[in-house]
Amino acid sequence: MNQLYKKLTPYLEQWRMLQTSLTLFEWDLETMAPESSIERTASVMELLQDGLRKAILKPETKRTIEALKDASDLSPAEAAIVRELVREMEKMEAIPSEEYREYANLQASAASIWAEAKKKNDFSSFAPTLEKVVDMTRRFAEKRAKGKKSPYDVLLEDYEKGFTEEKLDSFFEKLEKELPPLVQEAQKAQAGIDDSFLHQKFPVSKQREFNKYLAEYMGLDSKRVAMAESAHPFTTNLHCDDVRITTHYYEDLPASAIFSTIHEGGHALYELGVSEKLTLTPVGMGASCGMHESQSRFYENMLGRRKEFWIPLYGKLQELFPEQLGNISLDRFLAAVNLVKPGPVRIESDELTYSLHILVRYRLEKELFNGDLSVKELPERWDSLYEKYLGIRPKDAAEGVLQDIHWAQGSFGYFPSYALGNAFAAQIGKKMEEELPVGELLSEGKLSEITAWLREKIHRFGAVKPVSELLKDATGEEFCPDYYLDYLKDKVRAISQPV
Amino acid sequence: MNQLYKKLTPYLEQWRMLQTSLTLFEWDLETMAPESSIERTASVMELLQDGLRKAILKPETKRTIEALKDASDLSPAEAAIVRELVREMEKMEAIPSEEYREYANLQASAASIWAEAKKKNDFSSFAPTLEKVVDMTRRFAEKRAKGKKSPYDVLLEDYEKGFTEEKLDSFFEKLEKELPPLVQEAQKAQAGIDDSFLHQKFPVSKQREFNKYLAEYMGLDSKRVAMAESAHPFTTNLHCDDVRITTHYYEDLPASAIFSTIHEGGHALYELGVSEKLTLTPVGMGASCGMHESQSRFYENMLGRRKEFWIPLYGKLQELFPEQLGNISLDRFLAAVNLVKPGPVRIESDELTYSLHILVRYRLEKELFNGDLSVKELPERWDSLYEKYLGIRPKDAAEGVLQDIHWAQGSFGYFPSYALGNAFAAQIGKKMEEELPVGELLSEGKLSEITAWLREKIHRFGAVKPVSELLKDATGEEFCPDYYLDYLKDKVRAISQPV
Repeated sequence: MNQLYKKLTPYLEQWRMLQTSLTLFEWDLETMAPESSIERTASVMELLQDGLRKAILKPETKRTIEALKDASDLSPAEAAIVRELVREMEKMEAIPSEEYREYANLQASAASIWAEAKKKNDFSSFAPTLEKVVDMTRRFAEKRAKGKKSPYDVLLEDYEKGFTEEKLDSFFEKLEKELPPLVQEAQKAQAGIDDSFLHQKFPVSKQREFNKYLAEYMGLDSKRVAMAESAHPFTTNLHCDDVRITTHYYEDLPASAIFSTIHEGGHALYELGVSEKLTLTPVGMGASCGMHESQSRFYENMLGRRKEFWIPLYGKLQELFPEQLGNISLDRFLAAVNLVKPGPVRIESDELTYSLHILVRYRLEKELFNGDLSVKELPERWDSLYEKYLGIRPKDAAEGVLQDIHWAQGSFGYFPSYALGNAFAAQIGKKMEEELPVGELLSEGKLSEITAWLREKIHRFGAVKPVSELLKDATGEEFCPDYYLDYLKDKVRAISQPV
Repeated sequence: MNQLYKKLTPYLEQWRMLQTSLTLFEWDLETMAPESSIERTASVMELLQDGLRKAILKPETKRTIEALKDASDLSPAEAAIVRELVREMEKMEAIPSEEYREYANLQASAASIWAEAKKKNDFSSFAPTLEKVVDMTRRFAEKRAKGKKSPYDVLLEDYEKGFTEEKLDSFFEKLEKELPPLVQEAQKAQAGIDDSFLHQKFPVSKQREFNKYLAEYMGLDSKRVAMAESAHPFTTNLHCDDVRITTHYYEDLPASAIFSTIHEGGHALYELGVSEKLTLTPVGMGASCGMHESQSRFYENMLGRRKEFWIPLYGKLQELFPEQLGNISLDRFLAAVNLVKPGPVRIESDELTYSLHILVRYRLEKELFNGDLSVKELPERWDSLYEKYLGIRPKDAAEGVLQDIHWAQGSFGYFPSYALGNAFAAQIGKKMEEELPVGELLSEGKLSEITAWLREKIHRFGAVKPVSELLKDATGEEFCPDYYLDYLKDKVRAISQPV
């Protein structure tokens, strides 16, 4: 090992200790912690956050990182870790300690003010806070941009390196042009499909049983994967031998938990597949938000909504719910879980309209950060963009502009990664189809061979390769959103065929 | 605030962050973490342990602690914190970093070697490891003793300051003399009591419902207390607004979960009652192991096995288990849960024989540390002491010398605190009876008034007062084990009365 690189060891141990602790606290808050614990526990989490900041800004650490920037004899993993540390160090350096604390406090209070405003359905009580968040986020981004790029590009690249406004503009323009007619075509073709059988009562204890079965079927080995319940489903991991998913059960919406388990299962398989040589390091996790989302959406939609996926599974579901599904054919079930229905809420949206929800948010973030839109004008603009792209107007702020927590947390630039995830997934799926008999493997219950392919091409690299390189190495091509649109067109075409 | 004391702030923040994280990891490992996660997670926990050691041995911190030793203008809480830091610093200083790591590794591997040996029922496969643990523990204790006291006294005082071998000898001699005849008397009086109705099937889901009800009845507000399940019941807390208890359900032993909930509930009420000014500091928890155990045993035995405790509760239990308990009178239920039955296993033992299990362990630890017994001779000596004090011989090593994990973890000197807890509880209970109509309050479901008394006298002080002072302030007297024996004698006398 490079002698200089060795000097990073104390920092890397600090990082491992503080970051893993922080991850555990975050998990615990959503799944187990009693309600009144939050305030005091947040004070401990702030110390952990602050510890991470101090660790990377420690003079010895900074000197070592600086010196390693140009080292030529590092392994790919070492070089990637140095790249990540440089990024993190520059980010932290740009923000004075005082302002960093102020921002952390603002984020914490903004989240609860947002929650309260959503409950009361009152945007005006959240607007002044959101204005502060936007201002501080923009100010930090400007500092980090050093006049070399736009603040919004700085934010975008926090989540998806290389995917600047320019690149995303051309991506979203394609979606803007091609998705709305596809949605209309699908709706026309699906007229008359009845999914009311998925809105009967499905006892939660039986749903739990099915979802546990489903998780194991997907290869989520219970020795390395924990399952719990939380208000919103999510995935996290302490390391490659401790990955955790949650779901949320609704008695009259069994498809919600089922597809969230497949979705989070996709995230979990990614983390389980990261090389154990990388785990517990700053590159020991999925490569980016978008790449992570590509895996979850690939399992959820591109595999999980295919008939072949359900051939080995549907019998089990019918067995657990004979009254509800005993007389429902697999084709009827499939048609119901593929129903396209524009609605106001992103997380309840179908595969075809999902990226339109993201398009709305992308447009709004751009306008906010480029000074074309004020926070005050946000609700009206939100509603009019929903009308434009999805043909509906939210009935109120709670199901409109207040629906997501992201902006309260200062996570501007995050949303586009969801749409990119869909597009990455389609491009990866296309390549996989060339190399594997995907449908056949699914019908035969050999999901593990599909996962093995993804592990080989994507998972094992963790965050060592930049996303663009990872995608190119896996698919042989630069990022190309056409595969995503082709995939959706094929899907709509298939829907339009009589069953 | 004392200016010098202020200099402790960075250390105290480190402590808060690292210790709270460690506590959360410990909780998580027992309740949620997937099986295969342990090894990697242990490596993170070692970093946290090491971080705590480094924090207190940091030169600036040491200098401040040294300088504060003689400060006269500290508040009681500050002075207590300094007292704890001095103790911890001296403990850590006595052990070189290398050996400390070696010891930590030994403890970790010893626990799994012990578990394996217990499973295989083979003491010889654990003996060499246990020898190493005893040797290292003794060596560290000798260093810390600096020739001023015996190594075993050093260990004893880690758990219960002031309770040296000399003091414990006179305590245990009393127990040795008076308990065995009491056990015999109770058994004679209880001949013919039938508790078979407590060995029917009690569905776990209903048990869960009752234990949840019971916890709330005890005042464990679910906004501040989480409940979970683990192999062995325990209590932990992150701070005074986040206290957690576990239990373990056996379908044919409903009393096991019930009395573990009352027991852990007693621990939990203690932590919930610690002043919020102290929480998240090194004195923000129960005063000692023994004092903690006094609270859990007070609720479990001195309240929880009284008829009055069950008057407001037994109807609920019958309601949930009409087939099993519908025809069982409260008196029969009470007689069954108070049955005295010497057995080989400590954690399954009744109130009367419990301290005899501790007596055996105390004798063995003394002999081991004073050089009168070798690890090899341990099993035979264990069995003969069980025969002597409890009149039974364990059928094998698993239910004999291998039953507890404590020694594998190097926790020598811990066991006596369980017996002391019983004695503290009796002394505190005696005082409470003078000031409160305990039986009446229980019958009327006013447990909260009893808890309020304990909060006022014990809980709120956390670990600010040393145990001896706490006990004296609460009861008006120095520690006196006679109350414990009087309590047990009264109980046996009551049992001997016809119902």
